[in-house]
Amino acid sequence: MELEQMGRLAKEASRNLMKLSKPVKNTCLLTVAENLIDNTEMILEANKKDLEKGRENHMPESLLDRLCLTKERILGIAEGVRQVVALEDPVGEVISMKERPNGLMIGKKRVPLGVIGMIYESRPNVTVDAFSLCFKTGNAVILRGGSDAIYSNTALVSIIKKSLEENQVTPDAVFLLEDTSRETASKMMQLNEYIDVLIPRGGAGLIRSVVQNATVPVIETGTGNCHVYIDQTADVDMAVSIVKNAKLQRLGVCNACESLVIHKDIAKEVLPKLLTMLKENGCEVRGDKTVQAYDETVVPAVTEDYGTEYLDKIISAKVVDSIEDAIEHINANSTGHSEAIVTKDYEHAQKFLNEIDSAAVYVNASTRYTDGFEFGFGAEIGISTQKLHARGPMGLEALTTTKYIIYGNGQVRP
Amino acid sequence: MELEQMGRLAKEASRNLMKLSKPVKNTCLLTVAENLIDNTEMILEANKKDLEKGRENHMPESLLDRLCLTKERILGIAEGVRQVVALEDPVGEVISMKERPNGLMIGKKRVPLGVIGMIYESRPNVTVDAFSLCFKTGNAVILRGGSDAIYSNTALVSIIKKSLEENQVTPDAVFLLEDTSRETASKMMQLNEYIDVLIPRGGAGLIRSVVQNATVPVIETGTGNCHVYIDQTADVDMAVSIVKNAKLQRLGVCNACESLVIHKDIAKEVLPKLLTMLKENGCEVRGDKTVQAYDETVVPAVTEDYGTEYLDKIISAKVVDSIEDAIEHINANSTGHSEAIVTKDYEHAQKFLNEIDSAAVYVNASTRYTDGFEFGFGAEIGISTQKLHARGPMGLEALTTTKYIIYGNGQVRP
Repeated sequence: MELEQMGRLAKEASRNLMKLSKPVKNTCLLTVAENLIDNTEMILEANKKDLEKGRENHMPESLLDRLCLTKERILGIAEGVRQVVALEDPVGEVISMKERPNGLMIGKKRVPLGVIGMIYESRPNVTVDAFSLCFKTGNAVILRGGSDAIYSNTALVSIIKKSLEENQVTPDAVFLLEDTSRETASKMMQLNEYIDVLIPRGGAGLIRSVVQNATVPVIETGTGNCHVYIDQTADVDMAVSIVKNAKLQRLGVCNACESLVIHKDIAKEVLPKLLTMLKENGCEVRGDKTVQAYDETVVPAVTEDYGTEYLDKIISAKVVDSIEDAIEHINANSTGHSEAIVTKDYEHAQKFLNEIDSAAVYVNASTRYTDGFEFGFGAEIGISTQKLHARGPMGLEALTTTKYIIYGNGQVRP
Repeated sequence: MELEQMGRLAKEASRNLMKLSKPVKNTCLLTVAENLIDNTEMILEANKKDLEKGRENHMPESLLDRLCLTKERILGIAEGVRQVVALEDPVGEVISMKERPNGLMIGKKRVPLGVIGMIYESRPNVTVDAFSLCFKTGNAVILRGGSDAIYSNTALVSIIKKSLEENQVTPDAVFLLEDTSRETASKMMQLNEYIDVLIPRGGAGLIRSVVQNATVPVIETGTGNCHVYIDQTADVDMAVSIVKNAKLQRLGVCNACESLVIHKDIAKEVLPKLLTMLKENGCEVRGDKTVQAYDETVVPAVTEDYGTEYLDKIISAKVVDSIEDAIEHINANSTGHSEAIVTKDYEHAQKFLNEIDSAAVYVNASTRYTDGFEFGFGAEIGISTQKLHARGPMGLEALTTTKYIIYGNGQVRP
């Protein structure tokens, strides 16, 4: 099917989806969960084809692992859908309603966005995740996954469509772009007539390409060059524990710490312990002259290091003269994702919270908490690092917009 | 000054603006209001140069009128700034704060967007309006007005900068692009490093150009192909009164009605009265066959008529068989701005409110009310017709974003 036609059908479907009752939406999602499990064999077979193709193309083991589905992983995906059923549906809430002096009642009501375009990379679980969150909020979705996972994605989407039909709901609620060419992706990014919002999920290259090419409004999700700043009054053990967690608990994630900033007055006390801990965990440190002086294994940092999201056992480190310098350095180099201060100083804690220009700013906690589940949203469609519409972890509410509903009795403007 | 450098300085300024207290911001705005009045002569002289240039270039009278400043209009602009002072500043509000099971306190705080880029056409009052709203919410602003108003805008911005300096606040809070070439405007639309949001204000051509060219996130503001639907149970006098107001009270505005939709069962009763009223007011009607049958002056409508924002004494009209057909026709042709139903039927009123996909949906009231002042926001930076971030009239809150602030005591993720 042509993209243009998909867009038209998805838009038509979205007009019906916004009318669906909450129980009907939940019943559909439960059918999807059931049918995913019932069709495990079919999904695994399709996934096998993707894996074979990946091996032929010498895909690295780590990517093959992300692509690979197993019986357990499919159970996990189905369980994820059931968790979305349990979440509260934000659609329909009237957030405010006020009477104006002229008698008009003006209310603000939460409604679906319409048609959401998702552009993502290889993991097939995103296909089901994205559908279930979009559907729960009454949106149609056009999915453009990676070509690496095309067999798996096709199988998953066919099961979803079948599940919707079983419940007399339009299968046009979800489309998968089978043509994974760049040209078609570019067209999708400019399909303003039918797509209301684009959400790219993936590496920095993918996100940049969408931001550069899209004319459809984009919610930019997250590359994270996250910082931990150790203030002069920090509890040293807490600082080491937070850095260890933020850098090493999981490497390839956007909320991992990539850069350390240390106040000069605590450097002598905290740096040896930090460097030992990092070395013991096989983590390379790229530091400025002061940091280098503490350990010969510290690699001299170049300017680019402070702007790099390593997603690896590497961390940059810099010593600063004051909290003001720390804040300036962080605001200049961060991607606006998550930053933390470790401090015992009340004023510095408040200053850091106020002046750091990022989606999530922490006092005395690991940046690894920036996550929809950890924030208590029950689900996450991505982490926004831009400032429009949604900032930080995005749950169901980020997939809705509002409209004004106005009750009158014949008012005309004087 | 180069655009790039302006961007850098505006970004730096925005870091300071977000720290300004509410009283300091208000004092600055009051100084601006005072200095605008004190410098009336200087502003009028600059404006005279723009007007002379306009006349040389054979600018139409209506545009010359929009460009023209008078002593009274400058008083009005200053009064507008004072009204912004009186508004509540949304910055700093913590919208929610919850404790998670692990003891983390997670709060959502309203903060400035950062640097806002405004791209607009000839009216010089927008220069002061946009500055005062952006400044009130702690944002820096880069203004790109039309070349037609360059002398007036330069005078106004120099007065604003001077007013800020008098209060020891950075004059980099506002920049005016003196280079009004298309090339520089295009560069501004792609200055992602420094500009957080673009707000275009002007005609359909300007808005389209920004949406097509920008890589910076855009808040699309409003062209309005607004509809009034007259349901079969409508009060006929109310219908005529609402159409008269929505179409004719002011012609060149985005919330004016451009298209009528009439249920077939009321056509016989309402159309003669409507056509008489429109004819008496010199308004051309472009209608389908049914409408044409009522009056020989009705011009046959072509398909494009139903999608046209006339901004003139012209209205399109169509008769439909049912409310479902009306909703489908409106959703297919509207620009998602404002639509109204006139009805006595409870179920139809609810159906229209639920199913029309526009920023503002009215029952028994004129579409002319879609406006920040009429909605009680006290000010308006524009009317958003897109679904991300803000939809409908945008007041101060639309010029803010949120960030998560997290208070911990050493939490690390298990």
